[in-house]
Amino acid sequence: MIKRILHIGVAVKNLDISSNIFAKLFGADSPHSETVQEQKSQIAFFPVGESFLELIQAAEAGTSIEKFIEKRGEGIHHLCLEVEGLEAEVKRLKILGFQFVSESPSDGGDGYRVVFLHPKSTSGVLIELAEKIVR
Amino acid sequence: MIKRILHIGVAVKNLDISSNIFAKLFGADSPHSETVQEQKSQIAFFPVGESFLELIQAAEAGTSIEKFIEKRGEGIHHLCLEVEGLEAEVKRLKILGFQFVSESPSDGGDGYRVVFLHPKSTSGVLIELAEKIVR
Repeated sequence: MIKRILHIGVAVKNLDISSNIFAKLFGADSPHSETVQEQKSQIAFFPVGESFLELIQAAEAGTSIEKFIEKRGEGIHHLCLEVEGLEAEVKRLKILGFQFVSESPSDGGDGYRVVFLHPKSTSGVLIELAEKIVR
Repeated sequence: MIKRILHIGVAVKNLDISSNIFAKLFGADSPHSETVQEQKSQIAFFPVGESFLELIQAAEAGTSIEKFIEKRGEGIHHLCLEVEGLEAEVKRLKILGFQFVSESPSDGGDGYRVVFLHPKSTSGVLIELAEKIVR
């Protein structure tokens, strides 16, 4: 079950510069940045209502974030939806014909397991499905 | 003051096809579509938590939605943030150096007045600020 927009992921060239811009926009302090090893990126979050705006900078060359910026420039990269029952959602969506970048959940950072739907089956939108890991 | 993500706007070629796709994704009925004269577009909304996913199809040739799709293909077009005190927010952001597509609020449909920040001042993200009209 899809519960809410967890975050909007924005691909940026320079995390410090963009963090300052969005801190001004939201009237907030500049957030601390974190490295997500599995996604090879550095990220910073701003809360907006029940959601977040996530800024993403490539932490190394050749990542999908770097390729995205090369091709299209900085901008909105993906939409992350929080779900309850990740495996059941993947199964339900597969039966309906949706395609996945990878069906096996990986570490999305911040205590979430994630999968990505392929944008060719979702009108060009890269959608991340995320479920909080309960420990 | 920025309150929440009101919607994510997704530019699509065919509203009926994309409405069916997102209805499956959200496990929802296909929504009714509406025409927003001022934005020259046809739209359909899906609720997601406190926000919406908005599908947008150009209602006529030469619109920004059509140009966006020609250049980049279907996908996420803009991020709409609900604000309280639209004029005060525009004034605050102008002083901070943000640029606007147009500073004068226009009719955004669904009872909202809207302005758009220029993506060159917001890391490539087209941001719509919207305030509910109180009658």
